[in-house]
Amino acid sequence: MQNLKIDGERLWGELMETAAIGATAKGGICRLTLTDLDRQVRDWFKARAQKLGCTVTVDDMGAMFARRPGQHGDVAPIAFGSHLDTQPTGGKFDGVLGVLGALEALRALVEAGYETFAPIEVVNWTNEEGARFSPAMTSSGVFAGAFARDWAVSRQDRAGETFGAALEAIGYRGPERCGAHPLSAFFELHIEQGPILEAEGKDIGIVTGVQGMRWYEAQVTGQDAHTGATPMHLRKNALIGAARLVERVDAMAREHPPLAVGTVGSLDHPETAVLDAMERALFSAVDEVCEPLGLAGAAKKIWEQPPIAFHPGCIAAVREAAAQSGFCAREIVSGAGHDAAYVARVAPTAMIFVPCRDGISHNEAEFTSKEQCAAGAQVLLQAVLNYDRALAERHAR
Amino acid sequence: MQNLKIDGERLWGELMETAAIGATAKGGICRLTLTDLDRQVRDWFKARAQKLGCTVTVDDMGAMFARRPGQHGDVAPIAFGSHLDTQPTGGKFDGVLGVLGALEALRALVEAGYETFAPIEVVNWTNEEGARFSPAMTSSGVFAGAFARDWAVSRQDRAGETFGAALEAIGYRGPERCGAHPLSAFFELHIEQGPILEAEGKDIGIVTGVQGMRWYEAQVTGQDAHTGATPMHLRKNALIGAARLVERVDAMAREHPPLAVGTVGSLDHPETAVLDAMERALFSAVDEVCEPLGLAGAAKKIWEQPPIAFHPGCIAAVREAAAQSGFCAREIVSGAGHDAAYVARVAPTAMIFVPCRDGISHNEAEFTSKEQCAAGAQVLLQAVLNYDRALAERHAR
Repeated sequence: MQNLKIDGERLWGELMETAAIGATAKGGICRLTLTDLDRQVRDWFKARAQKLGCTVTVDDMGAMFARRPGQHGDVAPIAFGSHLDTQPTGGKFDGVLGVLGALEALRALVEAGYETFAPIEVVNWTNEEGARFSPAMTSSGVFAGAFARDWAVSRQDRAGETFGAALEAIGYRGPERCGAHPLSAFFELHIEQGPILEAEGKDIGIVTGVQGMRWYEAQVTGQDAHTGATPMHLRKNALIGAARLVERVDAMAREHPPLAVGTVGSLDHPETAVLDAMERALFSAVDEVCEPLGLAGAAKKIWEQPPIAFHPGCIAAVREAAAQSGFCAREIVSGAGHDAAYVARVAPTAMIFVPCRDGISHNEAEFTSKEQCAAGAQVLLQAVLNYDRALAERHAR
Repeated sequence: MQNLKIDGERLWGELMETAAIGATAKGGICRLTLTDLDRQVRDWFKARAQKLGCTVTVDDMGAMFARRPGQHGDVAPIAFGSHLDTQPTGGKFDGVLGVLGALEALRALVEAGYETFAPIEVVNWTNEEGARFSPAMTSSGVFAGAFARDWAVSRQDRAGETFGAALEAIGYRGPERCGAHPLSAFFELHIEQGPILEAEGKDIGIVTGVQGMRWYEAQVTGQDAHTGATPMHLRKNALIGAARLVERVDAMAREHPPLAVGTVGSLDHPETAVLDAMERALFSAVDEVCEPLGLAGAAKKIWEQPPIAFHPGCIAAVREAAAQSGFCAREIVSGAGHDAAYVARVAPTAMIFVPCRDGISHNEAEFTSKEQCAAGAQVLLQAVLNYDRALAERHAR
């Protein structure tokens, strides 16, 4: 089992091959969900998976599951994957690496003739990016019961087309009910989308969870007046209040190092207690800033995602995999949302991060090297095998 | 001459009568320049002036001059007026009061059979507001040589129609070349558009000049990064830089009390030396704010209007008029631009301000009372008579 190796050159070749589907002039990808380009890459993925002997099923949210049988057909599959859709000016790695890395790992199993205990599935989730239809992570959200399916398929893009109609149009509305697909575990390989691994020279991030995120809307009301004719002491300048709040939110995040981050208007941290403290500080700051300026201020929370802690068994499988593969790793909390954050609600889940240059993502300049991609896919394969072995041991007892 | 009195009721009646041309539901006026509504109010003005025995001429920028002869036809007229166009959600007084106040003053002269030394003209300038065509104060700017006529008539509105075409379309392109119309003096009555007179309980502002204004464009460049995944110490957040600059511009204006005002991104003061000091402070602030944040900052001046000092003789005529009429007055510098600021380049000029409630203008809620309007028109009439008398004395010597 220790000899199973993914082929980094082949993975890179497929990353570059699929990057042509929706390629932009600046080296990125524009492959919005449920467009004809999405259909093309789905067709490509389906054909490759079938060539490896997989059965590909699709659920009624368009999520694709490419299954390789294991020794026990009655055990729920161990899944790995991510998403093939991109931002309008997205890069070549966000999402795609997680699907193609899983496909390469599965190919390594097939070539070695290695038979897993559980079935293995490569997953492609629909509309992770949320760039065409909001919310993001639509199909994994429905899969995990976070969104109602009827509501999700009725979401419209800017042109007024619904998710459901777009899904029908590209021929990827499958017969399986979304969510009716038990998983033994789910592993997602993804670029970090932050600068920490690169800054610390780590190959692998063992992702222990996804931080909680809260969005706020603050309203600061001053009084319109002629900019030239109103003396300074008679102004009620809402922009000054807003500027002070921008400063305060920044300071507030710095008061909870090293994990808290805050940006007008969101606050993120892995712990609910810290988020609560930051929220209280934010509400106080609105009053403290506005009152001396004669402004009316009000803030409210408009969206929240609780912190997600990944599954200890899955995290252990990733940690062990990084060590077995000889890579330098650290634990890390995801700052961004991922399909895995929803899937974690219904199945044991963990993620693997690889560095991305300058922490840049959602950008055509996004870059992770061939070696870094290969390292991530190798750890992904090894983590799945570790988890599969643990599953087999548990069943044997 | 001390017995000449304007009729405040009649002035108010005409203000309300013309306010119906383009009236908005919220009690304001939407009468954009060179629209059919502008034509209607111009026709109304022309008819009223002709009824008073005036000859109405129009120049090739659409500026209207309603002339009542004086004793000396070879002396350039003393003019007074303002503009009849409004902002899209303008009030009933900005501009209109200056034209109708002048019309009422002229009517008082006619009714009293008072013969002035110089001819008297009521002026309606075209496109003071700049809401449909930029720049603002178009016809007075051409009149004063600040803009070339060919350039001004080629200016387009959002629908692509030119100033020249719109002027032709409403039939107000006159034969007289704009600017070829010497004036002995120009007086403009206007609402203050600021809160000073009201706050100090003054009836009349003796406007000694218009403050200088400089506009700046500042660019602060950070680095895009994922808001959730980038640790605070690795951020280059341009919004923080911008917020600090907003604070600094505010502080900068407060360092030069009581006349300096500053708003992102403009600095205003009646003295060039103070504007220069504020400009140096602004450029330094951009560097000081950006450097510690790791941001690139650059600022440049994009527009400037030098401070305008009105004519001592005209200011004296207004000051004397306020005293003769028994009103409580103070000297004041205009924070807003006005047609008078351009006319001052080519003729002795001054302005008269009356208070407006809460300093609010460019707003349907703009309000100046009947008594305040009447006071302004009375001082306007008296100022013109004072200046006319001084002109006659000078000619007699």
